[in-house]
Amino acid sequence: METLSTARAHGGTQGVYRHASSATGTDMTFSVFVPEHEAGETLPVLWYLSGLTCTHANVTDKGEYRAACAEHRIVFVAPDTSPRGDGVADDPAWDMGQGAGFYVDATQAPWSPHFRMRSYIEDELPALIAAGFPVDMAAQGITGHSMGGHGALTIALRNPDRFRSVSAFAPIVAPSQVPWGEKALGGYLGDDRTAWRGHDAVALIEDGARLPDLLVDQGDADSFLAEQLRPDLLRAACDAAGIPLTLRMQKGYDHSYNFISTFMADHVAWAAARLRR
Amino acid sequence: METLSTARAHGGTQGVYRHASSATGTDMTFSVFVPEHEAGETLPVLWYLSGLTCTHANVTDKGEYRAACAEHRIVFVAPDTSPRGDGVADDPAWDMGQGAGFYVDATQAPWSPHFRMRSYIEDELPALIAAGFPVDMAAQGITGHSMGGHGALTIALRNPDRFRSVSAFAPIVAPSQVPWGEKALGGYLGDDRTAWRGHDAVALIEDGARLPDLLVDQGDADSFLAEQLRPDLLRAACDAAGIPLTLRMQKGYDHSYNFISTFMADHVAWAAARLRR
Repeated sequence: METLSTARAHGGTQGVYRHASSATGTDMTFSVFVPEHEAGETLPVLWYLSGLTCTHANVTDKGEYRAACAEHRIVFVAPDTSPRGDGVADDPAWDMGQGAGFYVDATQAPWSPHFRMRSYIEDELPALIAAGFPVDMAAQGITGHSMGGHGALTIALRNPDRFRSVSAFAPIVAPSQVPWGEKALGGYLGDDRTAWRGHDAVALIEDGARLPDLLVDQGDADSFLAEQLRPDLLRAACDAAGIPLTLRMQKGYDHSYNFISTFMADHVAWAAARLRR
Repeated sequence: METLSTARAHGGTQGVYRHASSATGTDMTFSVFVPEHEAGETLPVLWYLSGLTCTHANVTDKGEYRAACAEHRIVFVAPDTSPRGDGVADDPAWDMGQGAGFYVDATQAPWSPHFRMRSYIEDELPALIAAGFPVDMAAQGITGHSMGGHGALTIALRNPDRFRSVSAFAPIVAPSQVPWGEKALGGYLGDDRTAWRGHDAVALIEDGARLPDLLVDQGDADSFLAEQLRPDLLRAACDAAGIPLTLRMQKGYDHSYNFISTFMADHVAWAAARLRR
């Protein structure tokens, strides 16, 4: 693991790191904020998965998480959203290929050699974080935005003993039922929709997966709300399954980091209440 | 004035605007954050002047000021740092020309036709802000970073009745005595150093200008500290003049927005204490 930069911020250290990923077969870059802590102390960790087109840098620059993470003494990890590079397949559209990994292990050409974001986020990167940073891996939370909200929900639903806190900002909750998801899951996983259900939060809940509880913020001025995000489908699935969902429709907010940064402190506090009890 | 974008953020509105400036003879872009407020109500305004290479966007993206401005109900204005465009003179170096206006009205070729940032920030933009936003122009504060800290200090010193609050992050305090300033003031104002004194905070204080008080944060790991920033010169000038200077050397902080964002809430609170009394 190579350190690209570190800087003191909000009493802790904001770092950016790169490593050769065995999951993706590419170099991968991620950022980690570590609050001030005692030597030898380990802190809870909150994963943040980003949305379409983003790298680690968008939330690192614009997410406004450091003050809240310093206050609650929580490590914040922000991975990239896909493999990248000249030898990696891509698509001219911004909702497929590089910057749009959708947190799945692709089985279809041309994506399968490198697009293994499920393995990367679920297995490889946690081991690297556990080995390289002062984290208590028994106290993990996960959140994310849009495609990254989809990633946070599905990874938490598939790994029920791993995350004690789950939340999302404007997540794609049912990719099998919306255009972004149909394109991506069809492209990465193929036409057999049964293979999609393990990567669809609503389908996972319908199939029996559970979360202890869940916070979702959604702007009501988000231009993707009705066609791509569909929190109504999450509401129905959680109600049917008895999952306590706190779904907050936020008046006037769009899909941007203006929205995310406004409610970031609430999501860090949500995680802290569950990771520090 | 053209609205380029607006988005709801921290309960208020973050906007980006463009207008044809008569001072610079170019289009100029700036951002304004307006907290939630009652119809007809006006709010105090805090000016933030940015550093070398920056546009309005750096602090707008990375400054983390919105939460504090929403809490204290203060409007935040972030101008650009120079005229820009194909017809505008430039220099291949990043510390001269476009992105490096130094908040002066240039008298020298090739800069004098457009590089009139003193007139723009002191006269033209305040009139535009007063006319277009819900601001109380009797309650203005000013702050800035690096070259913009220089701008904040010198503009406040030259306009003693205008700003009830003044602070800076890692400011250039004595441009006449450091390489960045000697290059810029020499290029924009010519070789006669007497013309520089009206654009040098330490010289202005030596020549009798005063501030009621002043907050300065400075990272002690800032790579520009010893050669370009020299807070010791500001300390000596303020002590000799009886200006109460709160100079905080911040251990381990660099010159970046990791530093600025960490202490931004303190500077907004400093302004609020002076603008809301």
